[in-house]
Amino acid sequence: MKTGRVTVPTDVDVIDDTIKIINRWKADAIRDCDGTDMPDALRKMNIKQYATYYTTRKDNAWAKAHPEEIQQMYLMSDYITAKGEELRISIMKHYYDQQLKPNTIDDIHRWWEVIDRTTDEPIQDWEYDEEKREVIIHHAIPYHAYTVSFLAFVIWDPVHMYNALTNDWKDEEHQMTYDVRQPKTQAYVKEKLRKFVQEREDVNVVRFTTFFHQFTLQFNEYAKEKFVDWFGYSGSVSPYILEKFEKEVGYPFRPEYIINKGFHNSTFCVPTKEFKDFLDFQQREVCALAKELVDICHEAGKEAMMFLGDHWIGTEPFGKYFKEIGLDAVVGSVGNGTTLRLISDIEGVNYTEGRFLPYFFPDTFYEGGDPLKEAKENWVTARRAILRKPVDRIGYGGYLKLALQFPEFIDYIEHVCDEFRELYEHVNQQTPHNLLTVGVLNCWGELRRWGTHMVAHALWYKQIYSYSGVLEALSGMPFDVKFISFDDLRKDASILNDVDVLINVGDAYTAFSGGEEFDPEIVAILRRYVDEGKGFIGIGEPTANAKGGKCFALYDVLGVDQELGFTLSHDKYNWETHPHFISEQLTHENFGEEVRNIYALDGTIVVCEKEQNINLAVNAYGKGRSVYMNGLPFSFENARLLYRSIFYAAGKEAEMKKWYSENYNVEVNVYPSTNSYCVVNNTYEPQDTIVYKGDGSSFALHLDACELKWFTI
Amino acid sequence: MKTGRVTVPTDVDVIDDTIKIINRWKADAIRDCDGTDMPDALRKMNIKQYATYYTTRKDNAWAKAHPEEIQQMYLMSDYITAKGEELRISIMKHYYDQQLKPNTIDDIHRWWEVIDRTTDEPIQDWEYDEEKREVIIHHAIPYHAYTVSFLAFVIWDPVHMYNALTNDWKDEEHQMTYDVRQPKTQAYVKEKLRKFVQEREDVNVVRFTTFFHQFTLQFNEYAKEKFVDWFGYSGSVSPYILEKFEKEVGYPFRPEYIINKGFHNSTFCVPTKEFKDFLDFQQREVCALAKELVDICHEAGKEAMMFLGDHWIGTEPFGKYFKEIGLDAVVGSVGNGTTLRLISDIEGVNYTEGRFLPYFFPDTFYEGGDPLKEAKENWVTARRAILRKPVDRIGYGGYLKLALQFPEFIDYIEHVCDEFRELYEHVNQQTPHNLLTVGVLNCWGELRRWGTHMVAHALWYKQIYSYSGVLEALSGMPFDVKFISFDDLRKDASILNDVDVLINVGDAYTAFSGGEEFDPEIVAILRRYVDEGKGFIGIGEPTANAKGGKCFALYDVLGVDQELGFTLSHDKYNWETHPHFISEQLTHENFGEEVRNIYALDGTIVVCEKEQNINLAVNAYGKGRSVYMNGLPFSFENARLLYRSIFYAAGKEAEMKKWYSENYNVEVNVYPSTNSYCVVNNTYEPQDTIVYKGDGSSFALHLDACELKWFTI
Repeated sequence: MKTGRVTVPTDVDVIDDTIKIINRWKADAIRDCDGTDMPDALRKMNIKQYATYYTTRKDNAWAKAHPEEIQQMYLMSDYITAKGEELRISIMKHYYDQQLKPNTIDDIHRWWEVIDRTTDEPIQDWEYDEEKREVIIHHAIPYHAYTVSFLAFVIWDPVHMYNALTNDWKDEEHQMTYDVRQPKTQAYVKEKLRKFVQEREDVNVVRFTTFFHQFTLQFNEYAKEKFVDWFGYSGSVSPYILEKFEKEVGYPFRPEYIINKGFHNSTFCVPTKEFKDFLDFQQREVCALAKELVDICHEAGKEAMMFLGDHWIGTEPFGKYFKEIGLDAVVGSVGNGTTLRLISDIEGVNYTEGRFLPYFFPDTFYEGGDPLKEAKENWVTARRAILRKPVDRIGYGGYLKLALQFPEFIDYIEHVCDEFRELYEHVNQQTPHNLLTVGVLNCWGELRRWGTHMVAHALWYKQIYSYSGVLEALSGMPFDVKFISFDDLRKDASILNDVDVLINVGDAYTAFSGGEEFDPEIVAILRRYVDEGKGFIGIGEPTANAKGGKCFALYDVLGVDQELGFTLSHDKYNWETHPHFISEQLTHENFGEEVRNIYALDGTIVVCEKEQNINLAVNAYGKGRSVYMNGLPFSFENARLLYRSIFYAAGKEAEMKKWYSENYNVEVNVYPSTNSYCVVNNTYEPQDTIVYKGDGSSFALHLDACELKWFTI
Repeated sequence: MKTGRVTVPTDVDVIDDTIKIINRWKADAIRDCDGTDMPDALRKMNIKQYATYYTTRKDNAWAKAHPEEIQQMYLMSDYITAKGEELRISIMKHYYDQQLKPNTIDDIHRWWEVIDRTTDEPIQDWEYDEEKREVIIHHAIPYHAYTVSFLAFVIWDPVHMYNALTNDWKDEEHQMTYDVRQPKTQAYVKEKLRKFVQEREDVNVVRFTTFFHQFTLQFNEYAKEKFVDWFGYSGSVSPYILEKFEKEVGYPFRPEYIINKGFHNSTFCVPTKEFKDFLDFQQREVCALAKELVDICHEAGKEAMMFLGDHWIGTEPFGKYFKEIGLDAVVGSVGNGTTLRLISDIEGVNYTEGRFLPYFFPDTFYEGGDPLKEAKENWVTARRAILRKPVDRIGYGGYLKLALQFPEFIDYIEHVCDEFRELYEHVNQQTPHNLLTVGVLNCWGELRRWGTHMVAHALWYKQIYSYSGVLEALSGMPFDVKFISFDDLRKDASILNDVDVLINVGDAYTAFSGGEEFDPEIVAILRRYVDEGKGFIGIGEPTANAKGGKCFALYDVLGVDQELGFTLSHDKYNWETHPHFISEQLTHENFGEEVRNIYALDGTIVVCEKEQNINLAVNAYGKGRSVYMNGLPFSFENARLLYRSIFYAAGKEAEMKKWYSENYNVEVNVYPSTNSYCVVNNTYEPQDTIVYKGDGSSFALHLDACELKWFTI
């Protein structure tokens, strides 16, 4: 009987139950969480003990004694339109003043910026009324709009605040933050960690939650979320850091490098050179400092684990400096297949752990709630990705006491743990067979591997689901998936040599489609790539960069373009749809949000069209091929559409029916080193299918709901 | 019994029938058409005789003798992507070679332009293979796309070609064009006209169809329409004209000023300075030359009438130079209320005539066709506009013989003629009472009065119907409608003083929303305008010019903005809809094509929302107000929504119920100088309503289908 690879959350009020759960789930590790404590009774238990460790908070005494080393965030005021020459801007309006407090300790005229947003020019002639928290502009231009970019101290840690509000913690002192990058705090935090690892002999794993900088998370005057960017760097700043940055890059810092017109350099913005410089600087500095903390753990004989979230900014696991941290493990929240791969693909650690959903918090575990449903969906979507690249462990978080109220949930997780161990036994340390190599082209490349089109971690947004479905589909497919940036292509276009099909997916001008990155050099590289025989798939508003009379930079490759109004005078005749290889299994067309006014050029094969909008089309370009799709919300049917499109674009449709299931609810994964393959039913209904083996031979197969069967090749 | 004000088309094969129709319709004028002839038997008849007159064709002998004075058009080749260093572009590919022939008589290296569209730079290193009609580029950059802009002779007049193909004229010699602007042809055409007016004593009215330059109309290799722009100037060029233009403006001409990236400077493109210079030059020159032809008619005691269409380029009736032509009349095709006003609002002529639809052509008058339905719709929509500003006459065109096959149609037109005369008697020479003044703001202003959002004359396009509905609604409303350009505002913003509500309607970056015209000066003017108490209505993607962190330049006035992806991290909470004055009578929401991702700012009142897209919202801005609408396809219900929105935006909703019908299918028009008002049922069903008079008193009224009742104030 296999055991282990499972982590259980505990608390002082569930000691006996924790033991019962450990036995049922055959867990080999326990952990505390934010708001819970490891019970003394369990500290001696012969089981791996994780201690959640906070480097930046839970020490208000220190924070209060060193107000200048409290963490800071760049904020932007509201846009205020001047109606006369004097304008007063209440900078904290619509911010939560218990979370954020303007930094007036440092020179505000150096670190703040007042901008005429109507002309986009910074202005110098302003002063600050500290009492009223108002910036006063004396010579405003009437009817221009102004903003103030300013530094604020983070006087309540956003995650602590979120947890406190979500759990309705009463009389909880607001945990202030402090900045480990700054000298006094840095020395203090290291010393504190040294003490902790010495004192807490029971702890095996220091679980950093996380290191130093929270992703951008701001609350409004009602303590409701105002701004969230899981990749946001706005909260990683301080004059101390920025002066160091200036010295390194050799040019003066401007708040606008971060604020970026109020977008806070959202991951959806095409990054500027200065912002990329800043990211590189921060990642290098953060990783180097994180290494020092990890070394302290190692010196005490403990493992160091990083939580992929919260204060993870600067530690991007697919970034250049991550491996140098020397972590033993990374644990992250698994929302779906994409976020599973976001963890399991990490290299440079000994093991990875997925914290599965739902988190045991009262927003899901309430009377009448259905945590079981969420758990089931979470597991079956994650399992697809595990079969391509498994995490090494799974676990849960939150209040165990809440989960105990739902016995069916507890039963189901027991089953999940068993199934996970079973799977892991098969796929661990194996490279599954990849049928093709697929590249995803955007501004971020590997740095945001599996992290595209995400605002808050794994949350649904109307503007992204049509695109993130592509990543979700890929996360469980038998392809080697590379993430490629425009800069990568400029450096060495030969990286495309082993990419069969390149995908560009996103809304116009976002970092994910690329916008202005489609300069003549990139356009020529990509046209050559397809012309010489490879495949290109564009989804949404791919390559959009309206220029030279066309909207899509690769209109000729894609065979479609977007009507922006300027070419209405050109008659468009190519609307008739044709049955096609790629859509053979498509019966419920669902291309997600409508991308407006896509039309096909002459010669393009239109596959799906709706009210004069092309939803699906294919085109031949030299020796290569392209596919255009309006969008691809995740479903197994849509995943199959993508699968067929990839084989078609690669010119390898004749080879598709190898290691293939005719029924798209079922997938096949092959593991050459153990001479095995598995067939998995991704649904909660029984499925019948025809399975094609590598030699093209096939057999009929029935699978029960969710069933996974192993075979020898 | 009133008679007259009606023009009937005739032909040699319907002499007796023409007389019958003249009697039944009580017509006072007859006309010939393209493809018909005035029968000799009718030439002596005591009735006004129009002779359709063509200045630019129907004389192939002249055209063939002077090939250098055949009309020319700028064309752009296909975009061709180079795959090596040598590139051959077949310039006439996808053009109809019986319509167009490359001009190699003039210096091609001066008048043609080869452009690298990937870099947007013209290149010099090319030659032309005349036999193959290919431009050869010897040092192309691989994978850049190239185009050739070139001059072509119009060897088959596009209207003659259209008529010949539509009517299946067999063995018809293709009518070539010639350019009246050029010296030899000009002298010849004048002389010919002099002869014509002397010889044709029977003719009372010379109906110019039209003057010199056809709107842009190109056909493809299958003789199907390839490009149509009713406002297009691409066919108004020749080296002779362009050299004159160069001399006047003092800078060298570039084909790109016309071709404009292949958009042929569509009326949807924000016009460049050079294009505006060219328009001004052409309009001045064309009007001056047209005057000379009109003078010839006048000297012979004949009237001169211009057809508003076909070769009308340069004669824009709302342009600066039109009145100087000295025309007696303008006749134009009436497709709806908007196009009725396009004719009836013309000043500087003695009378206007609407040529009503359907045109007596076999595309409508075929066995099983329903010309009656089209006639009914045409009349009832035009009637709304006639009640605001009538044309002075109505008429029909085409083959009378075809119409005679449909007796119900003939009966109905008899009724229309009677009703038109009845209406005209009431509303002629009157200025109806305007309740408010409404401005329509775009790049074109009065030059395109009632001519906005139009590709081909009055035709439906998916991308325009949501916007042209606004103009159609306004064409029959009791408002003084002004068309205002951004240049007008820059010159003198005080023109807004008597405008109660300003409307900006269109897709982003088109000439109708304005795009880059929303510079700081314009933005400040408009903010002040609303702030000081006026109204602003934005429809579609109004004021869109993504800059300074916002998409809509007047986001603060409108209270809404468009999510382009960069502000997804900003939480948006204002989605709840509220009942509102403007939507009180709205039961079937139809905002047309979805404009994606419109969200409301804090404080804005959301009225209609659908799947996280704001369709209708209102906002207060200083002393003024704004309304945002997604779109407004024409319907009487939507027209009422606009009507209520205009009163609301003007801050005059308390005054709305004066000269008002509670039922929106019924409208009220007031004529102070005759102390009368009429109440009109715009539908083909009976309607009941409450009519409010100017003092606010009201009475119930029943109207039969289409009925119009007159009252004394």
